[in-house]
Amino acid sequence: MGRMLLQAAANYPVETHILENDEDAPAAHLCHHFTPGDIRDFDAVYHFAKDLDALTIEIENVNVEALEKLESEGVKIYPKPTVLRTIKNKILQKQFYQHHEIPTAAFKIINNLSELQQEQAFLPAVQKLAEGGYDGRGIQLLNETADLINGFDALSVLEKKIKLKKEIAQIVAVDQQGKMVLYPPVEMVFNNNLNMLDFQLSPAEISQKVLWKVEAISLSLVRHFNSPGIFAVELFVDEEENVFVNETAPRVHNSGHHTIEAHYSSQFDMLWRIILGYPLGNTKAILSSIMVNVVGDKGHSGPVQFEGLEQVLQIDNAFVHLYGKKETKPGRKMGHVTIMSAEKQDLVHKANKIKQILMVITAASPEGEYQL
Amino acid sequence: MGRMLLQAAANYPVETHILENDEDAPAAHLCHHFTPGDIRDFDAVYHFAKDLDALTIEIENVNVEALEKLESEGVKIYPKPTVLRTIKNKILQKQFYQHHEIPTAAFKIINNLSELQQEQAFLPAVQKLAEGGYDGRGIQLLNETADLINGFDALSVLEKKIKLKKEIAQIVAVDQQGKMVLYPPVEMVFNNNLNMLDFQLSPAEISQKVLWKVEAISLSLVRHFNSPGIFAVELFVDEEENVFVNETAPRVHNSGHHTIEAHYSSQFDMLWRIILGYPLGNTKAILSSIMVNVVGDKGHSGPVQFEGLEQVLQIDNAFVHLYGKKETKPGRKMGHVTIMSAEKQDLVHKANKIKQILMVITAASPEGEYQL
Repeated sequence: MGRMLLQAAANYPVETHILENDEDAPAAHLCHHFTPGDIRDFDAVYHFAKDLDALTIEIENVNVEALEKLESEGVKIYPKPTVLRTIKNKILQKQFYQHHEIPTAAFKIINNLSELQQEQAFLPAVQKLAEGGYDGRGIQLLNETADLINGFDALSVLEKKIKLKKEIAQIVAVDQQGKMVLYPPVEMVFNNNLNMLDFQLSPAEISQKVLWKVEAISLSLVRHFNSPGIFAVELFVDEEENVFVNETAPRVHNSGHHTIEAHYSSQFDMLWRIILGYPLGNTKAILSSIMVNVVGDKGHSGPVQFEGLEQVLQIDNAFVHLYGKKETKPGRKMGHVTIMSAEKQDLVHKANKIKQILMVITAASPEGEYQL
Repeated sequence: MGRMLLQAAANYPVETHILENDEDAPAAHLCHHFTPGDIRDFDAVYHFAKDLDALTIEIENVNVEALEKLESEGVKIYPKPTVLRTIKNKILQKQFYQHHEIPTAAFKIINNLSELQQEQAFLPAVQKLAEGGYDGRGIQLLNETADLINGFDALSVLEKKIKLKKEIAQIVAVDQQGKMVLYPPVEMVFNNNLNMLDFQLSPAEISQKVLWKVEAISLSLVRHFNSPGIFAVELFVDEEENVFVNETAPRVHNSGHHTIEAHYSSQFDMLWRIILGYPLGNTKAILSSIMVNVVGDKGHSGPVQFEGLEQVLQIDNAFVHLYGKKETKPGRKMGHVTIMSAEKQDLVHKANKIKQILMVITAASPEGEYQL
């Protein structure tokens, strides 16, 4: 995320600073100033940003206390730390939806495994750790009583499973005056094995009625956050076309990668406009698109090598983004490919082709990178 | 150029090194490794690149002897140094066109001012210094005998002035196997005062016959260079629809800036594909476009400040690129704006609006840059 945000930054008059533990992180070589440090550490975050004008995040896992102190001293934070505090704890997040009458799946708060085992009547359900889950970690489906034994023995949320017809993501941009614009919602198709996206179709194929619900719920929710920034609202649509909010990310998000090429103003360009106080950009699509995540193949951990890249680059209007991560492991997001086309059939055909061709494996030699 | 090339590099598995005198250069903060040094100096260029896989240029003014030694030792150079040697000397460049029967304006070689003054019968003509001219420097129009007194007293080319109807630029991409693809030619509209582009329209409004000539001449010329890389061929079209080559740049070029947003594969993306041995990209336009250069306003030299940026960013589908240069001076290229639209009238209207709104002046305080 940081890397793509910095690619977009280069168009604007801004000097960039990055805080990251890993000096080989994808964003480390695209900024003006790199500071090694742990984003979870109060002192690291506070000293990094105390003389900066503004700060944004690429992951929720940042020390919120430091952000609150920085905000009180005049550093502008996107999103506001109070939003982050709500969202990074899945219990607070659910209670926020409930409090503001945002439709969301019924839930219970679970303190430990023995409490969980009393909830047989609530199944099937999804258990999510209150803190620390990310990209399919800290979340599990509990279909039947027998599954309860493997539940998390920790503070968590148990959500009633929704009879899912579609999963939708709606990106909302909010400027410093509270003006809001919506990108067209996208539709996510999951591979159930890794809980990773199979691919993501833009725009989502939904009825006008569902579109209105998605937009109205997202706007209402984001208005309640009362913060400038980019918000990715993940929603479920059930068989009866009811719409529920699943989770919200208060930042640039995987579900907006396609906006780099397929929309006039990308989510990254939009965030710079918000931070720099410029007018919001145009969220319209140039063409329909599919985004395919490039993830580490099973059985490969170590220095990364991409196979089939040349064949993928032969496909017209396939845009390859590799994030520059040096090490692969099964399921790790190593990049993405966006395909643009006026024809959905063409998009799906090319997406499947790319998924078959492109292999993310370990390199025969770690010295394979090109020096220019 | 380097900056935009690095923005595109971040999509591919490549580690980047930059050689530049100015540690605050636009490209300095977007690469993996920055080496301060003079690109005109043999040792600086040679030691910088001797352990790299490949090297490309953003300006012709690089030490060619160093590039030739590097090439002999196995570093791949885009374009080949022999091409650069021909092109960076305007006499050799004209002789190259003549030798390969590429249509170009009649010319004479001039050694000094007294030789120039014998050429009254050759006027009106354009005198170009053999070496070192760039962006309107080292070039002047000599309309009549009285102008000769102000001619350059140096080795130069005197070119017969063509009765110009249009000025066209044709970008050609050549891969390592010699396969070539063409972008649609663009049309350049000049402001005669600064010899800077007023704006650039894509695609050029030319007849099918002129299009064929432009393409055939450009392909023939670039084939004779016998080198992989990106080539920007500048051509003149006269009143009788004859087509002449003016000059060639063997690198990513100002006339290809619009390809970043308005084409599927930009000139920068294309150069990476060539260098990395990937298939050539799609040169088709997504939509018609106009590119407006953002240049320093008259009477302003010093720390730069942009006025009217917010109004420009309010215009739908106007893409702003500021290069991050800290100092402005009259006529200095500080950025560009690309506008996309299906309607030419809409493009021209928005381009004129941008030229009226956007001011490049000196900052009240040099500390104005945003720190994030």
